[in-house]
Amino acid sequence: MLNEVARRLLAIRFDTLPKVAVATAVDAILDTVGVTLAGAPEPAALAARAALVAGGGSSGAATLFGLPDTAGVLDAALANGTASHALDFDDCSNTLGGHPSAPIIPALWALAEAEGGTGRALIAAYVAGFEVETRIGRAVNFHHYEKGWHPTATLGIFGAAAASAHLMRLDAERTAMALALAATMSSGLKANFGTMAKPFHVGHCARNGLFAALLAREGMTANPEALTHPQGFFEVLNSPGTYAPERVLEQFADPLDIVETGVAFKRHPCCASTHPAIDALLALRADQGLTADDVSHVLSWTHPRRLRHTNRPSPSSGLDAKFSVQYVLARALRHGIVSLDHFSDVAMADPATRDLMARITAEPHPEARMDTTEHFFGEVTLTLADGRVLRHRVERPVGRDRDHPLPPGALHAKFRDCAGRSLDTDRTDRLLAALVALPDLPRIADLSDLLRAPRPGLSRRAAL
Amino acid sequence: MLNEVARRLLAIRFDTLPKVAVATAVDAILDTVGVTLAGAPEPAALAARAALVAGGGSSGAATLFGLPDTAGVLDAALANGTASHALDFDDCSNTLGGHPSAPIIPALWALAEAEGGTGRALIAAYVAGFEVETRIGRAVNFHHYEKGWHPTATLGIFGAAAASAHLMRLDAERTAMALALAATMSSGLKANFGTMAKPFHVGHCARNGLFAALLAREGMTANPEALTHPQGFFEVLNSPGTYAPERVLEQFADPLDIVETGVAFKRHPCCASTHPAIDALLALRADQGLTADDVSHVLSWTHPRRLRHTNRPSPSSGLDAKFSVQYVLARALRHGIVSLDHFSDVAMADPATRDLMARITAEPHPEARMDTTEHFFGEVTLTLADGRVLRHRVERPVGRDRDHPLPPGALHAKFRDCAGRSLDTDRTDRLLAALVALPDLPRIADLSDLLRAPRPGLSRRAAL
Repeated sequence: MLNEVARRLLAIRFDTLPKVAVATAVDAILDTVGVTLAGAPEPAALAARAALVAGGGSSGAATLFGLPDTAGVLDAALANGTASHALDFDDCSNTLGGHPSAPIIPALWALAEAEGGTGRALIAAYVAGFEVETRIGRAVNFHHYEKGWHPTATLGIFGAAAASAHLMRLDAERTAMALALAATMSSGLKANFGTMAKPFHVGHCARNGLFAALLAREGMTANPEALTHPQGFFEVLNSPGTYAPERVLEQFADPLDIVETGVAFKRHPCCASTHPAIDALLALRADQGLTADDVSHVLSWTHPRRLRHTNRPSPSSGLDAKFSVQYVLARALRHGIVSLDHFSDVAMADPATRDLMARITAEPHPEARMDTTEHFFGEVTLTLADGRVLRHRVERPVGRDRDHPLPPGALHAKFRDCAGRSLDTDRTDRLLAALVALPDLPRIADLSDLLRAPRPGLSRRAAL
Repeated sequence: MLNEVARRLLAIRFDTLPKVAVATAVDAILDTVGVTLAGAPEPAALAARAALVAGGGSSGAATLFGLPDTAGVLDAALANGTASHALDFDDCSNTLGGHPSAPIIPALWALAEAEGGTGRALIAAYVAGFEVETRIGRAVNFHHYEKGWHPTATLGIFGAAAASAHLMRLDAERTAMALALAATMSSGLKANFGTMAKPFHVGHCARNGLFAALLAREGMTANPEALTHPQGFFEVLNSPGTYAPERVLEQFADPLDIVETGVAFKRHPCCASTHPAIDALLALRADQGLTADDVSHVLSWTHPRRLRHTNRPSPSSGLDAKFSVQYVLARALRHGIVSLDHFSDVAMADPATRDLMARITAEPHPEARMDTTEHFFGEVTLTLADGRVLRHRVERPVGRDRDHPLPPGALHAKFRDCAGRSLDTDRTDRLLAALVALPDLPRIADLSDLLRAPRPGLSRRAAL
């Protein structure tokens, strides 16, 4: 099967991509670069980089996002991949049952920097990797997800391998070998959710997907039937009767999965169950041109299933604040954005925000039913100082699908917020402008300087 | 569970090891070093090293066995680990359902070189790693093996992580994290047997076990219940009801698995089904002081189940010759050893050996039954030029267990044969002497120069 998958993924070319695929890819790449810069100073990313240094380090032209130094492509893929998922703020795919871009972009970026890839080559390779990982996802989900695998890693490795092979222009035979090697390195247990190992899985799979392609290029062999063999990926990682191999090639790239179903973007750096209420409040705020002073009371209604873990009127830490609907609504009302900086232990205790939280009430929606899966809505009622009462309801958090797109400017605002954790404003702005124009970028390596922190960097510990 | 495993494995100290454990460990380490030197010029090892170079290389004090250069510990563990299993000539464990030493020694050796480990520290860490991987093996085998996992890799990674944590003297908490990280990186599909990916699995798991310990040392976190969690190693990699978690701690180190059941050594570099006949012939040859000229006919009787794939009177390649009982008996009769050099495509066609093969007949044992698992025997009948007829039968190939030990000198003869593929005779002899005295070696790094090929090396392609 992998020989045919290889032929089809190599047939994906930039010139024949639908416009919407290119636009979505540009948004996803931009968003992934942003969250990677945001995650670079996180403890998981620091620990991964420190262990690579202890393990021998490496040298090469690949950028360590947000750091002054460079590294070899494998180490860069691992370090940046861990950073990309460190805040769990990266994009999502329902087909994958996970995060489609974080495994691919760190591998591709490093490779493109080292081997002279263009913006177009990166985009086409990314779309090819996205297609492969989501098609394999269709064959195994959601049993695969529910069994306890971490699909972002166990399926993402196929995306990283396919994309790397595409960018390297391997032939079909070697590309199939790369995918078979990816199958044999696929790993990542959900038992480790809630620890730093979760983002580490993503760095590990990005590195290994890239390594699979490098190994194949250097002549390493593997079995092109490594998916469908009785002791292959489908049967060994899944349970008998739970997967459908034919779905891998069925409608492969027709349409592309990035076109339909597309990519879900996370707008806010906090628990997803709080997002609909934030979106409803931000919509009213923008429509009416409100500030916090205009508002005397906020009533937030969500589904009780979502409120159970988000009804935290007095959060005790920055992490706790990510799950407090009262806190995030206060921040949204004050600033018009819920920002990464709001979740430090210091910011969480900010007196002005705490004052505002006293005017915010969170309740289960009085008409909510428990026998439904339609529990993604949020409804807020604002009582204004001038006596007016405004109400707004959203059915889904924005950014989750094409029917609920992000409002104009939200993705770029998020990028600035994220990149600002590692870069200064000038670099952030220039990088954003360059990423928006990614299809016209002659060399990915032209952006390397912008991605690196000037010495001394913002990173708090030793660089690679 | 992993906190308790960590406490117990860290309690294994050289000073309290039984003598037989030390002696077996020395033999196993010596044998693993030998087969690694033998495997270093193999295509799988060359491809792994070339891909690491393409991925950025590394720098450090760790030896690349049989090459002139050094590397960082992670790359060395991967490259040497791949070499150690490249010929499938490394030691075996029935508890593990695979090869117990190849995942551990390459990781430990690199670490000991880089961080100043002694011979005793290496031995104690190896025994601890061996104990952990085989205890986890008891909990999941043989379902785990039969399901399609490659236990040398999927269980060996625990051995590499435990041994590395032991050598680093991590505390119990970080050691448990290392094991939880090993669980989340465990991978390797039997679908890739018969390709270079099989030995690559071993290098990959050696590197990742070591990496798990480095990550834990640098503060990476994971779930210490990553084995027993409902979405952990036992439940996710195996099938419900097929494993027994309590077996991990049951009789842990009491006795040590390396004492009972011990290590099985492979004496001959060819298909295991041919080993009993070779052993029977070599025993007669040694007892009677025979040469090939003394023998006019050889009749080999094995179990038909074993003969089916080894009855190859005219092999067509060096690889094919590994499965020809006629060929390997001819070599054993001529030389008193079946040697690695006998399996090149040139050697396979050697006229004198082909002449001798005409005097060798292989038949199924006339009294063999099909309803038995006692099919490991070999019986040879030699008709001598002087008319005498000699017959000898062995029930098990030698080296497989303590009841069927290798004959004196066989392990060292194998070492010389193996090491000679990468080193000259002088270095081979000095290395062997040093390994025999391993418990008294002040620094593993004292052997680094002996393990390196002088420039220009015997390697046929670019070194790291």
